Order: sequence, then C-alpha cells, then structure tokens
Amino acid sequence: MSSRIVTISREFGSGGRTVARLTAEKLGFDYYDNELVTKLAEESGFCEEFIRENGEHASYTNSLLFGLSIASMSNGYNMSSFDKLYIAQQKLIRELAEKGGCVIVGRCADFILRERRDVLSVFIHADDDYKAKRITELYGEREESVQKRIRDKNLRRKTYYKYYTDRTWGASGNYHLTLNSGYIGIEKCADIIADLARAGRAE
Amino acid sequence: MSSRIVTISREFGSGGRTVARLTAEKLGFDYYDNELVTKLAEESGFCEEFIRENGEHASYTNSLLFGLSIASMSNGYNMSSFDKLYIAQQKLIRELAEKGGCVIVGRCADFILRERRDVLSVFIHADDDYKAKRITELYGEREESVQKRIRDKNLRRKTYYKYYTDRTWGASGNYHLTLNSGYIGIEKCADIIADLARAGRAE
Repeated sequence: MSSRIVTISREFGSGGRTVARLTAEKLGFDYYDNELVTKLAEESGFCEEFIRENGEHASYTNSLLFGLSIASMSNGYNMSSFDKLYIAQQKLIRELAEKGGCVIVGRCADFILRERRDVLSVFIHADDDYKAKRITELYGEREESVQKRIRDKNLRRKTYYKYYTDRTWGASGNYHLTLNSGYIGIEKCADIIADLARAGRAE
Repeated sequence: MSSRIVTISREFGSGGRTVARLTAEKLGFDYYDNELVTKLAEESGFCEEFIRENGEHASYTNSLLFGLSIASMSNGYNMSSFDKLYIAQQKLIRELAEKGGCVIVGRCADFILRERRDVLSVFIHADDDYKAKRITELYGEREESVQKRIRDKNLRRKTYYKYYTDRTWGASGNYHLTLNSGYIGIEKCADIIADLARAGRAE
C-alpha cells in the first residue's frame, strides 16, 4: 500500500521546503506549508503573523518553558496561547491526514501522525557551508552573520520540537528517511521520496 | 564523480549488514566486515576474538572510560589495548579507502573518512518490533529477552562511537543518508544506496 501522506521536517537552509514542494508535484499531492497557516488562521482565530512566528519554532519566551509537562495541557486549564496554537495545529494536521494525498512541512507532523501506517516521514539536512551559501543567495547578506541566523533558527525549531514531542529533532530514529540535500541534490531528494511514497511500507 | 567508498553503520537487528553486502554486490565493490577483522589480526597482531569483541562496541570495562580525552592517545603513552586497536583499525580503514571500491561496515568508518569527498555515509535503523522479529528468526530465542539483547548491543555500539568520535550515533547530521529498513525493505535500501554511490556528490 502506498503512503498517502509525506511529512518533511527540514533544517533552515537545507532546501527542504523546495524538496517538499517538488515531492508534492511529482506525486500530485496537496502541499501544506504556508497553506497550513492560512487554514489554521481561518479555523482557530489566531492571526497569521502569530502562527507564522510561533507555529513551529520556540519564541524566546516559550523556549524558557522547557521542562514543564505537556500533560498539564490536557484539560485546557492554564494553557498558554502557544499551547492552544499547538493543539489547533495538531487537530488540523490530523484532519488533513484523514483526507490523504498531501505533503506536510514541519510543525511536528511526523510526531502527530506517528501511529498511522500510511505516512512516510522524512528529515532534510545539509552541511553548514551548503546552508550558508543557499541562505545568502536566497535572502542576501544581513547585519547578523549567516551562520548565526542558521544556528538560531535551527535551535528554535529544535527547541519547539523537543518541547512538544520530547524527542530529539533530526535523530534518525524519528524518520523513515533522512537526506543530506547538499550531497544528494534537491531534485534527486524529491525523486527518492516520491518513489518511496509510491512503494509504501515494505513490512 | 561517483563515490568510491560506502560506509554503513547499523543498529543491531536492522539488517544493515545484509544491506551492506547487497550494496557491495550491486556496485561490484569489496565488502569489509569480518574481512576487516581478519586483515586487522594479520597486520596488528591482535587476536581475532579480541578484535571482534572490542573493535566496534564498548566492553563493560572501557565504557567506564567515558569522558577521558582521546588526545591523550596521540603519543601512544598510557594507551589501553582498546585504544591501540582503534588506532590500528583507523589506519587500516584509511588504507582501504585509498584503494577505493569498497563498502565498510561499522567501526566509526564514517567519522574516520569524514574529510574525503568520495565517501557516501549511511546509517540503517529500524523499529523495535522489526528488530526483535529479525533477531529471533536469525539467532533463535535465548534466556535473555530479545529486547534486552538489542538494547544492550546498540548501547555498546553507541558508547563506543561516542567515546572515539565525540558524536551521537544515529544523529542524521553524521550521515548523507539514513534509512528505516523495516519501512523501506532490505533490497530497496541497497538499491537506493548503490544508486546514490553511482551518482556521487551533487555539490
């Protein structure tokens, strides 16, 4: 049985978002990245800017909450806006998965959908030099060094993932497949993922 | 330029050794696993049993050495037999890489050869149920539970890798490619690796 859902987590600068878009095109799947932000804003009432800023990386504030139990969220009592956003996002990702035929970027989707047998879960990373070159080409030079921008953004994604899943972001055991996009190439990454999604689970 | 060397690290029970052998066959490459033990015994004078027991996983004794600096090894002063074995292994792996056309299993080869541009570095893992089923089929039931055998063996490999490389075993960033062999299937894993080795580095 082929996999109807592909989740793609990615390091900032690895080109993982492009890999995800190409994979969706090759499979004829819906693609959810910014599209998810819009949908979430419509359904949850959070404004798009708040979702974009807090929907998949820790803000400086909530990274300090590290260590608080997620269990306290279950009754909705004392939930922060960040936690409410996570819950709304989780609900939406589960609904999208139910429909199937989609590629979902980031937002702990690999963890949220981990019990499903029709999910292919992928992580895209790259060497530091490759990421720095790519980010500079895409977004230009800024006052802050490109190395610092990459380090900070990836640390915020890692912290967010740890907080909501209690897992290590990028640990191979969380994914069916991890790819170094610099070594393999963006197009080839998408080919491998699309091919594996079509083949589905071997077990 | 295609990759002339493939390193394959693997969780015990994942079938990674079979993936490595199939990959070598598909590429027409030499395959070094037990072959490396024999060569090492010839060149270093260590007996095969000692190499097999200490060449890629921490024994109960040397796992306690955790935290001692590897720098103290550089002058050969106060080196343990374990460290001498690591040094001999490192030398042999570098010599084999120089010849090229080979698949090397385990033994920190990914770390030892990390500066080379003609290496494809792979990690194979699998879900716990898959590993347990595979180990029971291959080696039968034993007094100790299969879960404990898998956990202990993988912890010893992880500890050995950490001690000699200061890296986390199985962290995606250490490898160009990591594959869940249960999801993907053994044969298909070898196909993907062989294909990527032929294509070589995209950058």
